[in-house]
Amino acid sequence: MCKFVKNENKNRMNGIVDCGIYAHGRRIKQVDELKEVDEALINNDKFVWLRLKDPDEELLTDIQNRFGLHELAIEDAHRAHQRPKFESYGSTYFIVLRTIKADEEQNRLDFGETHFFLGKNFIISIRHRSPVPFDDVRTRCEASPLLLEKGAGFVLYAIMDFIVDQYFPIINVLEEELDKLEHKIFKEKYRRETPAQIYRLKCRIIDIKRSVSPLIDICNKLMRYDSELIDSDIRNYFRDIYDHSIRINEMLESTKEQLSMALEANFSLTAINQNEVSKKFAGWAAIIGVPTMIAGIYGMNFTNMPELQWKYGYPFAIGLIVTACGLLYYFFRRSGWL
Amino acid sequence: MCKFVKNENKNRMNGIVDCGIYAHGRRIKQVDELKEVDEALINNDKFVWLRLKDPDEELLTDIQNRFGLHELAIEDAHRAHQRPKFESYGSTYFIVLRTIKADEEQNRLDFGETHFFLGKNFIISIRHRSPVPFDDVRTRCEASPLLLEKGAGFVLYAIMDFIVDQYFPIINVLEEELDKLEHKIFKEKYRRETPAQIYRLKCRIIDIKRSVSPLIDICNKLMRYDSELIDSDIRNYFRDIYDHSIRINEMLESTKEQLSMALEANFSLTAINQNEVSKKFAGWAAIIGVPTMIAGIYGMNFTNMPELQWKYGYPFAIGLIVTACGLLYYFFRRSGWL
Amino acid sequence: MCKFVKNENKNRMNGIVDCGIYAHGRRIKQVDELKEVDEALINNDKFVWLRLKDPDEELLTDIQNRFGLHELAIEDAHRAHQRPKFESYGSTYFIVLRTIKADEEQNRLDFGETHFFLGKNFIISIRHRSPVPFDDVRTRCEASPLLLEKGAGFVLYAIMDFIVDQYFPIINVLEEELDKLEHKIFKEKYRRETPAQIYRLKCRIIDIKRSVSPLIDICNKLMRYDSELIDSDIRNYFRDIYDHSIRINEMLESTKEQLSMALEANFSLTAINQNEVSKKFAGWAAIIGVPTMIAGIYGMNFTNMPELQWKYGYPFAIGLIVTACGLLYYFFRRSGWL
Amino acid sequence: MCKFVKNENKNRMNGIVDCGIYAHGRRIKQVDELKEVDEALINNDKFVWLRLKDPDEELLTDIQNRFGLHELAIEDAHRAHQRPKFESYGSTYFIVLRTIKADEEQNRLDFGETHFFLGKNFIISIRHRSPVPFDDVRTRCEASPLLLEKGAGFVLYAIMDFIVDQYFPIINVLEEELDKLEHKIFKEKYRRETPAQIYRLKCRIIDIKRSVSPLIDICNKLMRYDSELIDSDIRNYFRDIYDHSIRINEMLESTKEQLSMALEANFSLTAINQNEVSKKFAGWAAIIGVPTMIAGIYGMNFTNMPELQWKYGYPFAIGLIVTACGLLYYFFRRSGWL
Amino acid sequence: MCKFVKNENKNRMNGIVDCGIYAHGRRIKQVDELKEVDEALINNDKFVWLRLKDPDEELLTDIQNRFGLHELAIEDAHRAHQRPKFESYGSTYFIVLRTIKADEEQNRLDFGETHFFLGKNFIISIRHRSPVPFDDVRTRCEASPLLLEKGAGFVLYAIMDFIVDQYFPIINVLEEELDKLEHKIFKEKYRRETPAQIYRLKCRIIDIKRSVSPLIDICNKLMRYDSELIDSDIRNYFRDIYDHSIRINEMLESTKEQLSMALEANFSLTAINQNEVSKKFAGWAAIIGVPTMIAGIYGMNFTNMPELQWKYGYPFAIGLIVTACGLLYYFFRRSGWL
Repeated sequence: MCKFVKNENKNRMNGIVDCGIYAHGRRIKQVDELKEVDEALINNDKFVWLRLKDPDEELLTDIQNRFGLHELAIEDAHRAHQRPKFESYGSTYFIVLRTIKADEEQNRLDFGETHFFLGKNFIISIRHRSPVPFDDVRTRCEASPLLLEKGAGFVLYAIMDFIVDQYFPIINVLEEELDKLEHKIFKEKYRRETPAQIYRLKCRIIDIKRSVSPLIDICNKLMRYDSELIDSDIRNYFRDIYDHSIRINEMLESTKEQLSMALEANFSLTAINQNEVSKKFAGWAAIIGVPTMIAGIYGMNFTNMPELQWKYGYPFAIGLIVTACGLLYYFFRRSGWL
Repeated sequence: MCKFVKNENKNRMNGIVDCGIYAHGRRIKQVDELKEVDEALINNDKFVWLRLKDPDEELLTDIQNRFGLHELAIEDAHRAHQRPKFESYGSTYFIVLRTIKADEEQNRLDFGETHFFLGKNFIISIRHRSPVPFDDVRTRCEASPLLLEKGAGFVLYAIMDFIVDQYFPIINVLEEELDKLEHKIFKEKYRRETPAQIYRLKCRIIDIKRSVSPLIDICNKLMRYDSELIDSDIRNYFRDIYDHSIRINEMLESTKEQLSMALEANFSLTAINQNEVSKKFAGWAAIIGVPTMIAGIYGMNFTNMPELQWKYGYPFAIGLIVTACGLLYYFFRRSGWL
Repeated sequence: MCKFVKNENKNRMNGIVDCGIYAHGRRIKQVDELKEVDEALINNDKFVWLRLKDPDEELLTDIQNRFGLHELAIEDAHRAHQRPKFESYGSTYFIVLRTIKADEEQNRLDFGETHFFLGKNFIISIRHRSPVPFDDVRTRCEASPLLLEKGAGFVLYAIMDFIVDQYFPIINVLEEELDKLEHKIFKEKYRRETPAQIYRLKCRIIDIKRSVSPLIDICNKLMRYDSELIDSDIRNYFRDIYDHSIRINEMLESTKEQLSMALEANFSLTAINQNEVSKKFAGWAAIIGVPTMIAGIYGMNFTNMPELQWKYGYPFAIGLIVTACGLLYYFFRRSGWL
Repeated sequence: MCKFVKNENKNRMNGIVDCGIYAHGRRIKQVDELKEVDEALINNDKFVWLRLKDPDEELLTDIQNRFGLHELAIEDAHRAHQRPKFESYGSTYFIVLRTIKADEEQNRLDFGETHFFLGKNFIISIRHRSPVPFDDVRTRCEASPLLLEKGAGFVLYAIMDFIVDQYFPIINVLEEELDKLEHKIFKEKYRRETPAQIYRLKCRIIDIKRSVSPLIDICNKLMRYDSELIDSDIRNYFRDIYDHSIRINEMLESTKEQLSMALEANFSLTAINQNEVSKKFAGWAAIIGVPTMIAGIYGMNFTNMPELQWKYGYPFAIGLIVTACGLLYYFFRRSGWL
Repeated sequence: MCKFVKNENKNRMNGIVDCGIYAHGRRIKQVDELKEVDEALINNDKFVWLRLKDPDEELLTDIQNRFGLHELAIEDAHRAHQRPKFESYGSTYFIVLRTIKADEEQNRLDFGETHFFLGKNFIISIRHRSPVPFDDVRTRCEASPLLLEKGAGFVLYAIMDFIVDQYFPIINVLEEELDKLEHKIFKEKYRRETPAQIYRLKCRIIDIKRSVSPLIDICNKLMRYDSELIDSDIRNYFRDIYDHSIRINEMLESTKEQLSMALEANFSLTAINQNEVSKKFAGWAAIIGVPTMIAGIYGMNFTNMPELQWKYGYPFAIGLIVTACGLLYYFFRRSGWL
């Protein structure tokens, strides 16, 4: 174990997390100082795997010179805030991916970035604001010496696969939230918050899509480019990631489409509710209005109103009122207004 | 009959449903143990048709070695939950299709999967959660020895055709449901459930589309790829499936479009209903309000109100009220508010 | 005249409507029995034009053998219910078109199908559920011997042109219906049926589009395919049909777009109507409510209410009521609520 | 000046407006009779510019023979009502453009057509229902002999440029109408006509788009086709028209998009208005309803109602009413309902 | 320093801002009179960088002749009001970009234009209505002699990069405004201005998109065109701008999409508000209506109404009224109407 790996939280030298030299599918050397890689870089049978995290400019310049990287790619790697992309600088590939992590406590998504430099016999991975280290990937790679023997391209595949696999739980959470929203819309009474929740979920999907959709194109290039950087046996593996990206995209697409439909349906239901409120109101207004009208009539002060002198005038009026209300109630009930 | 075919429900050995060796368009041998296929795999005149259902890992590994399949494809075939796709691994094709079955009792669709490995002289079909066996397909294939003679590609066509044919009844059911919805929206009174029903139908279409639309691309590749795996005479047959896929897609597309239009129309009608409720309410409110007002006026306690002393004051007031109500009723009726 | 042509309604032998042999742009022979065509099929200077209507399976099998057609195409031709398409089977083209006829009495569209087999020296047209025979086309073709000399391709053009020309009146009817709807929406009072009418018109357009839009692709193929089946001089003519198809598509597209806009506008107007109903109701409610309130006040039973004893108390109260109502009316009128 | 040009309104011979023979960038001859062009058509150094307006069939047939034009193009040129298109008939191009003219008095657009036949040494322009003659274009062309020397292609460019330039004022008018609509929607009170005006403006844009958008494709072909009909130096000039077409399209696109947004915004505002009407109505209903209730209570006929006997009972009741109304008014005002 | 640079606001000679001759990555000469550039233009090792601002026609003609520019490009450069574009005139490129500057005081965007002529050994930049001069770009370029040595292409890159970098703050402002709108819609009470604000923000995005989106295509051409005008080492740098353009486009796209969603959500909330207003109104109407009804009943003038004579009739009636209102209030409260 090299001295700067010990503790992720410890102050790592320059931002290097781990560095090893591989030959014939095995890790043959743990690199403690960067200059040790020079020998490996000119040896066709070996390759260097260098893992960085939030490196400072000085380290990046050192690496640029040692590995012969293009100035523009190094600038991008330093500034981060790139969109996912694949760029070929002649003998080196520069790849940017987004990592996503759900911060469940705060109910938001944390977007990070991972950059890669892939050369003939080296792979450099640089994590920016992405919390999960690639130790598991290293373990898994070193457990497949036959594939690791094919060169640094397999390491690239392994890390990309690892990153893409982390998208699935995120999307499952989105789909669950959609299910909850559906339930709220169609089963429960309408709620004021529903439009806001649909809006937020859709915004989140737009954000994730911007991270995921360029992956399809990136994988396509990695599969098709007939370069010596990636062994032809490994190229099939990128098709696997390509497939995952398409599936994730489809899932996001249909979730988004369903959300739009849900908003429309919610809106339709609001209008139907309004209709029902109006009908109920109209019904009860009539049931209160008719007695008021009858009472008003018998409250007129005409000297000659025979009913007023009737012995049972008052019960008759009350009966009239009750009958009228009963009929109205029955009528509204039957026609579905109440 | 081989021993492990007898009963679908019986515990089949390893998940093998049926295995036969074909030559010159005829089934020449029923395979009881997998090792019997080895001889056929190196004979250009014969081909093996192996049918599996939910195979376990052990069997898949055995098959992988015996037929020389790619590790990634075997992994996909084991995990299932793939999207429909076509992948060429040099000398083998790996194809994934979705099967759909309407579970009418529970009013939902059951999605299954069928995977294929097509090689120079073998075809392997693997069913996952798809209930309908391919015994009919076998019967039909063996009835066309002239086409079966062309090799395993024809078997692939026959199974794909069988799967795609099962989509049509599903779509007919969707179209019938749309018709019912249309009737509800335009003929009957509006119902609270309509938006939910439209929403669910649309979701179902999205699900089916995700299963069906990749088929177009798959058939395209099977038609165009100029490989020796599929006889050129058989390629025309895949055009038939291609055609069906396009038709299914078009049907889904227009059903979906009609549903969107139906939701909008439904919404428009809700608004028109609201309008009518408001008008009716306004009309009756006036018809109740005017007598209340007149009665209120004759209920005032002024000492000097000549009408109150009239002999026919009371009938006059009632007459006034009835006339006013009658006029209002006539007026509202004419202008369509009642 | 061959014996089976006499009467469309008579029981035609096997479904053959007409069959002739053409050479150098002229009809040189009327075929009475199918076997007579064999000699023409092997003669490069002649071509056979065979017209069928709803043929039975037996006849189709006979034709398949005689003309050397592909089994799949024959199956399609028998089953009908195809979408419009172009398929090249090596030396033969198989083309499917939809015919549309407005059934004005029942206010619906009748969709039929016409299939074509075009070979080096034959053209077979098969009508399914399409009522209009191609006698006019035959007359027109035989009137242009210079073009008919170019071979069976010209006959294909002539029939396609005839079919496509029948689309235009259909679309004109749709456009007229749209005009009527526009008038209803913007000029007349709103009607409950408008959304349903818009919906139905849009569905009809979707149906027609499914029949027409594949035509563009079919013509494209007929124009581009550099095969000997269609003389290069004739290819320009298919551009004419291509042009018509694009125009029809555009007309359908804009009619559809206008319908969507009309639905939205109609909906907007419903909302505005609702607004106006509410305002009117509010205005009149106030005009009825205020007198009721004033009358109520003078209906209170306080012993000490000076106005009640006034000589002109009653006229004063009535004056108050009339003034209040007048002011309210004036106010609501000015602000557009009444 | 040839005899038949004198007066546009005079009965022109056969529909010919002007005809000239050009050589080395200069007009060398005014053609009076069509047969005079024959000599020029076989001379590589000269070209004929023939301008027609609504020609009759006889003239077109004469021209077809003389210039060797394709029958189908002549048919199109005669029937007019074509969509804008570019068609290459081997040695001749046939081009159709739409001309648009705003008829401000009747507030509608007049669509005309101009057809072109471009050959190796001739250009024929045919105006259909398009009122503006190309005299200005002729003047401008003849003022650039260096470009005119490049052949008939430059004349084509000059006329197309002239036609496209006339689109801009039309679009400016549309944009102004949009501005007026915006003002109406957001600044003034809502109006019943707004949805209809938005609808009409959108229909107009759809119409113009159908005339303009094919231009992009036409220019593209004129720029790319590597034919000898258009001098390579002139091809750059068509890029200019191409550019204009794209700009016009973009302007139409964004105007249309803004109109859709405006309709939505207008609809939103209608709903907000409805909200405000409802609130205002509710507020005033309460302010009228509460006094009615209080008055009703003091109108009850209980023998034992102490307030009725109070000396200041009546002022007290009035005070109660005024206070209640005042409080309600204050409360509704504060919460924005009034 | 050349004499005409001194002061941007001073009357510059002819519109020239600065002109220098560069060789081997260094500025070797400050040009005072245009004719001095002639010698540099024929020297492959040197290149001229000429900066103009709103040049007059005379100067442009001089430049056209001296640098051999195409007449059409010069015309465009003079008229300005072009859409962003890239045009190759053989040995020269003509490029148009839009500059955007937020005028915060007036809360609007100022759109300017910058045109470029790039030749083998010159670059001419022409600013139209764009306020920010390129002095900073010059400083930065001259600080990278290694890149400047690659020729005028690097200067083009540097200016384009400078212009594109100015888009980002504009977009950040838009995103902030969207955030504010979201807050208004979901947190505060609805406001009448919201639809107008959403509309205006969307219009602004459409305007910016029209300026930015053609950039992607322009960069693509600059990256791909294999011409000697741009050194192959410099081409990678245009990929950087390409990347920025795509990012800006994506940001605009998602902001626009969010705005559409926000408008819909806002509309949904307006409808929900309407619902709540209706319910509240209905509730209070009942609470006022019921006492009025009860009071009306006890205001009837029947001679025989026992309650009226009760000692506690009046308190009983009041109690009845209060109880009824209380029950209604409780009931409405519980069901969420109040």
